[in-house]
Amino acid sequence: MKSIITVSREFGSGGRSIAKEVAKKLGYEYFDVEMIERIAQTSGLDPEVMENAEEFSARKSLFGYAFIGRGTKETSMENYLWNKQRDMILELAEKGNCVIVGRCADYVLRDSENALHVFVHADMDYRAKRIVRLYGETNETPEKRLTDKDKMRKANYEYYTDREWGLAQNYDLTLNSGKLGQERCVDIICGLAMAE
Amino acid sequence: MKSIITVSREFGSGGRSIAKEVAKKLGYEYFDVEMIERIAQTSGLDPEVMENAEEFSARKSLFGYAFIGRGTKETSMENYLWNKQRDMILELAEKGNCVIVGRCADYVLRDSENALHVFVHADMDYRAKRIVRLYGETNETPEKRLTDKDKMRKANYEYYTDREWGLAQNYDLTLNSGKLGQERCVDIICGLAMAE
Repeated sequence: MKSIITVSREFGSGGRSIAKEVAKKLGYEYFDVEMIERIAQTSGLDPEVMENAEEFSARKSLFGYAFIGRGTKETSMENYLWNKQRDMILELAEKGNCVIVGRCADYVLRDSENALHVFVHADMDYRAKRIVRLYGETNETPEKRLTDKDKMRKANYEYYTDREWGLAQNYDLTLNSGKLGQERCVDIICGLAMAE
Repeated sequence: MKSIITVSREFGSGGRSIAKEVAKKLGYEYFDVEMIERIAQTSGLDPEVMENAEEFSARKSLFGYAFIGRGTKETSMENYLWNKQRDMILELAEKGNCVIVGRCADYVLRDSENALHVFVHADMDYRAKRIVRLYGETNETPEKRLTDKDKMRKANYEYYTDREWGLAQNYDLTLNSGKLGQERCVDIICGLAMAE
């Protein structure tokens, strides 16, 4: 029985939908990285760190995680949020019965015996069609949007964990959702979570 | 329904045992890389290439796959065997209903709609205990034996495929056999193979 499921995923692979469905089926609480970031950003922030929050966000969206000036004020903001998120993930895990979607939860909870760490990916074609269907067209090609987002996730993961994003060895289970289908991915994860 | 299962694995992870069990349960034929290498080495070899076979084998075991002099006669031997093995894997896949254990079968059959590509890994501690139990002690520590063997598999895979060994994106499914248990790995693979 695994009371914590972490789900990391390539953008557009449906990892988040799979995680939501798993949480629903298992009756677990669901948390995603945006929810955790939002709470971390708005709760109990050090005022000096808060001053840089707006600039930080602007830079983050302009240049991506990888290119934020390190060793500057932004760094302390970034690290502050990272520590805050890490503590939140540890707190959620302590309570158990939850599904956490986020790039680094597998790393934060790497030593947890009660956790099942999952990575979901799919090929470019499947993901491109899926993001256009879900989020619509933009000025950029879907392939460019996918590559940019993956690059950001990869850089972020590798900066904080010193591990390689997407490497099988970091996860208990990785699934190609495009090839296997979302429903089957959900069934496999639920089956493993419930196994003795 | 998937009529071809390829299984790549870290040394000591039990990937081969899992593959054998899957073949038995599905009633598929089982082939491993050693069987394929043996057939390729002894069938229909070009006589000029054969001359180098003994030296090639000696060098291979002395220096490992990664350090075989490239651009020399050994290269042509190595490439000849690689091409031969690739053709054999394609032939086996053509017939279908088979499980192929080998480092590059996932790559050779990467475009096959009927194939399910699996990678099995486990942490060092699990694998170390397992190889000592199965193969006994040697002068080298089990950790050294594991690291050396993995290094060889990785170098070989990356030389022939230009892809990274163990990257989730190369496989439809990757499994941590130490954490999930061999039996559950077998069940998941068989379930996916038989799914419509």
